[in-house]
Amino acid sequence: MVELATIALDAMGGDFGPDVVLPAAVQVVKKRQDVRIILVGDSGRINACARLHNMVLSDRIEIRHASEVVEMHDEPGLAIRKKKDSSMRVAINLVQAGQAQAVVSAGNTGALMGTAKFVLKTLPGIDRPAISTTLPSISGHTHMLDLGANVDCTAEHLFQFAIMGSVLAEAIDNTARPRVGLLNIGTEAMKGNALTKQADALLQTAPINYVGFVEGDDIYNGSVDVIVCDGFVGNVSLKSSEGVAKMISHFMREEFKRNWRNRLVALVAMPVLKAFRKRIDPRCYNGASMLGLQGIVIKSHGSADVFAYGNAIEIALLEIRKSVPQHIRERMEPILERVV
Amino acid sequence: MVELATIALDAMGGDFGPDVVLPAAVQVVKKRQDVRIILVGDSGRINACARLHNMVLSDRIEIRHASEVVEMHDEPGLAIRKKKDSSMRVAINLVQAGQAQAVVSAGNTGALMGTAKFVLKTLPGIDRPAISTTLPSISGHTHMLDLGANVDCTAEHLFQFAIMGSVLAEAIDNTARPRVGLLNIGTEAMKGNALTKQADALLQTAPINYVGFVEGDDIYNGSVDVIVCDGFVGNVSLKSSEGVAKMISHFMREEFKRNWRNRLVALVAMPVLKAFRKRIDPRCYNGASMLGLQGIVIKSHGSADVFAYGNAIEIALLEIRKSVPQHIRERMEPILERVV
Repeated sequence: MVELATIALDAMGGDFGPDVVLPAAVQVVKKRQDVRIILVGDSGRINACARLHNMVLSDRIEIRHASEVVEMHDEPGLAIRKKKDSSMRVAINLVQAGQAQAVVSAGNTGALMGTAKFVLKTLPGIDRPAISTTLPSISGHTHMLDLGANVDCTAEHLFQFAIMGSVLAEAIDNTARPRVGLLNIGTEAMKGNALTKQADALLQTAPINYVGFVEGDDIYNGSVDVIVCDGFVGNVSLKSSEGVAKMISHFMREEFKRNWRNRLVALVAMPVLKAFRKRIDPRCYNGASMLGLQGIVIKSHGSADVFAYGNAIEIALLEIRKSVPQHIRERMEPILERVV
Repeated sequence: MVELATIALDAMGGDFGPDVVLPAAVQVVKKRQDVRIILVGDSGRINACARLHNMVLSDRIEIRHASEVVEMHDEPGLAIRKKKDSSMRVAINLVQAGQAQAVVSAGNTGALMGTAKFVLKTLPGIDRPAISTTLPSISGHTHMLDLGANVDCTAEHLFQFAIMGSVLAEAIDNTARPRVGLLNIGTEAMKGNALTKQADALLQTAPINYVGFVEGDDIYNGSVDVIVCDGFVGNVSLKSSEGVAKMISHFMREEFKRNWRNRLVALVAMPVLKAFRKRIDPRCYNGASMLGLQGIVIKSHGSADVFAYGNAIEIALLEIRKSVPQHIRERMEPILERVV
């Protein structure tokens, strides 16, 4: 029998707080017998929410009271120093204390990263944690990091991100040697800025399947498994992609609603359009990993619904089962010895 | 009567050379009575191409022989030093000599930028030219620069790009005060990397309608008219966007071809799908401006077809009619005086 995995959820985080986190937790424990959930937050509100939705809490769902909430506009430093009884902080503390193996939060990204780094610390050899997410591609999906935690990176940081990304892809996708590419503006050796040229030289020595430079379109065409970049570039790339996808949906809706004839066509085409939309549903990709910490921390999108939040919990569970932080630690060991 | 505008075309550039450039030239002179074209390249090949397609060259199309061709893999420095009779170089020389008012090339981007900068020089106050293109947005289009000419930028460069982008948008879109945004990973003042923070401070003093930070999705949602970024970020953003759009098209095609039922639905939906596809047709956005030079230089995509290449010629014509370089020069003058 598999051991019970315990996941702490920051029940107050995100746009909807317990209204989304609670039903998502109930669904996951119903589906998975091997999961225990600790809901951290205002116990009064969580219980009221359970009554409102007529939810019967399983014996595998526990409520842990926390009196404060980190707001979306709170500065990370302030959240760490002043809100020591916030739902986010208490949930992270549970991981630090070994009472939970992972934490999921839809709250303030900066505060989550800052608090997690402060409480859990980074793994040996990792200077900065990175945010990694899975993005759809023509042939499956691609892992990309960093997506915004580190806006000014050195080549050494990108090197560490590449190791972490490779370990994550190995664990999540069950692939032996995931192809890791470095995001650049051309694939020839002479292309790129100062950072990518330095990082490329360093990555040639990395104990991973480094395949060299890739370009923005390689995120979505399935040519690599992991793409590494600094957090500024990664964030812009991600937001640009979201922007294009939204614009395309907008134009498609407009055309299918243009007149009565088109509306009829839309009705006929609905099952096909639905199947299509499902394939690029961003909710299926909700749940970004904060890699490089001594613990598993998953960031859910603030506006996630129950389905999307459930996905973030599933990612947490997968990383627990695959011992991702432990594997990153092991992979960094020979590199640290090499440096010494 | 409008004065005749003369545009020099690098007939040998791009994947198809005269097979695309020649028919595009013929179409434009047919449509526009105020345009004269000088086709620069291997006159034997151009004439053979005209015979092959049974094309009657108008008296407003002239062929200027050039014995060499800049290849896609040629390094810019080599193209400048060694290929002085290339179609690209001779076409740019025509602008320098005042025999043409603009040049269009689908050739090697680096060589085109390098040669244009070497022959035409930059405008006073402009350290580096930038590549600007128009991208579709929900409410029209957005101008974005730089897209890859400058991979390591300073705040001063971004300041100059913002001025040039504003002037271009004013001219092309006939808007008095285009909204200019600086691409960042958040809109709050504390967000961003060292470069964007410095550039933001500098842009507060710019004689343009600077609206502050914007994010990647703002390229496509119509919230600003001009978006400024360094060439590395711009290129990654553009390629990521292309990648997403291609993936979405791929998934849509797959769903509509999945089985006989879906194929039938596709037939019914064809007119709507076509109208939709037309709205995001990248060919309509072909033609990037190399801004900041003492002359008009338009880069067409290497794989452009006749329709797309014609679009690049139209952009050249528009920039001639609107005297874009002259307006950039005028806008930079008070800034130069301020610095002195």
